Amino acid sequence: MAHGPTSNNPFDQQKSIPGVKTILAISSGKGGVGKSTVSTNLALALGKKLKVGLLDADVYGPSIPRMMGSLNQKPGINEQQRLQPIERYGIKMMSMGFVIDEGAAVVWRGPMLFKAMDQFLRDVDWGDLDVLVVDLPPGTGDIQLTLAQKTPLTAAICVTTPQNISLIDVKKALDMWKRLNIPIFGVVENMSYMLNPANGERMQLFPKGELDAFLDQQQLTKMIEIPFHPQVGMACEAGIPVVQMKPESAESLAFMKLADQVATKLGF
Amino acid sequence: MAHGPTSNNPFDQQKSIPGVKTILAISSGKGGVGKSTVSTNLALALGKKLKVGLLDADVYGPSIPRMMGSLNQKPGINEQQRLQPIERYGIKMMSMGFVIDEGAAVVWRGPMLFKAMDQFLRDVDWGDLDVLVVDLPPGTGDIQLTLAQKTPLTAAICVTTPQNISLIDVKKALDMWKRLNIPIFGVVENMSYMLNPANGERMQLFPKGELDAFLDQQQLTKMIEIPFHPQVGMACEAGIPVVQMKPESAESLAFMKLADQVATKLGF
Repeated sequence: MAHGPTSNNPFDQQKSIPGVKTILAISSGKGGVGKSTVSTNLALALGKKLKVGLLDADVYGPSIPRMMGSLNQKPGINEQQRLQPIERYGIKMMSMGFVIDEGAAVVWRGPMLFKAMDQFLRDVDWGDLDVLVVDLPPGTGDIQLTLAQKTPLTAAICVTTPQNISLIDVKKALDMWKRLNIPIFGVVENMSYMLNPANGERMQLFPKGELDAFLDQQQLTKMIEIPFHPQVGMACEAGIPVVQMKPESAESLAFMKLADQVATKLGF
Repeated sequence: MAHGPTSNNPFDQQKSIPGVKTILAISSGKGGVGKSTVSTNLALALGKKLKVGLLDADVYGPSIPRMMGSLNQKPGINEQQRLQPIERYGIKMMSMGFVIDEGAAVVWRGPMLFKAMDQFLRDVDWGDLDVLVVDLPPGTGDIQLTLAQKTPLTAAICVTTPQNISLIDVKKALDMWKRLNIPIFGVVENMSYMLNPANGERMQLFPKGELDAFLDQQQLTKMIEIPFHPQVGMACEAGIPVVQMKPESAESLAFMKLADQVATKLGF
């Protein structure tokens, strides 16, 4: 009985989630690069063709409920005692934000986090999904390890911004996925540049660093550059992601292009 | 012997750091709001009048070595087996970035983090400091708890950006400091607005949310609004913080104004 629940190898706890065909982790080395913005817009873009779930695993700072216009929703519990996801724009969602009050601090130590994540992975009635998009907290910590140990992750994407300060952290995130033997689809460069509304000139809000050279050297792909536009953040604030609010905008088209690549790589 | 080292109250482990007069925590609910940029520039601005140390407690994503132009420096160990801080622009610094390679993932669980933090708090030879500025990781987790439990924190500052998505997280950070009984000096609003280089118009990169109303209601102070300017990020990338590189810029003057308030509140 080497592989029972008492095994010491944490990866032996890995179990598929019934009904869920593929699981895609959206990670970032650093916070504030727009990981949740990418997760929601990618989920919506994928949702135009596939059955999509969105798990907000950023238990410290769950942004998905607000960005998806679903604040103050409470998930029901079905007859099998499983949590019912909240549905919005055709996407099934689960988030710590649905379970605790938005204003309260989650001053939690590791073991309590595992337990919450475990419940989100086991006890949510996702139904049939082509892909479950998981919005991870930034960094390379407990939640990422737990996810990789407990579920058969299909692949990971890293979100970053152009400058070298972010590159340091994306390197760490990529290094983590490699060590955990999770395939990396590629890197999304967010807030890549801004077209100045006054004169149309391309502005570098954050200076370009050595990301491209690093990706070449590692034989990794930059999947897309998403331009900065104040309307992306405003759409998030309004609870209507830009892919939904302005589907013809340059930013939305970039997210659609990303979704096409992701769907192909996932085998759809 | 209720208060010996075997006490169950973790706050009984609290010990002052010899030679260090005050300790200021720079926190944020969310990453990517410019917390490390504020920490370095505030440390430099304070350093014009006071003896200042800068502890990079962002063990997952240490940015201070790069921002302070001190990559690849290795701290020495003195005769008392204590770590010697790295000094730059008159500021004494310690960071996980000096101890591990910039590229390696710190895939660490809680207990290992405590140990690293503990060493940084106990075994660094800071000498005499008026203020030790501590750049915390984003969020409300292990490192924040450890710091509040092990050291007599003088006060905390929260850094945020204008939009409501960040406000949710700053509320949590403020809530945490309140629960831990740490005085809050106030909130720094970073990337508050940008003056368009093409026509000087004020642009809202991130939409204004309800931060001001919330602070009023909580009787908390917004200490300063720091404007966005690409040169702030470029200065960080170059390892010469903007307060050092362009001391007369609007951003630097904002940091100086913040430092004046902090110094007064700390009693200098």
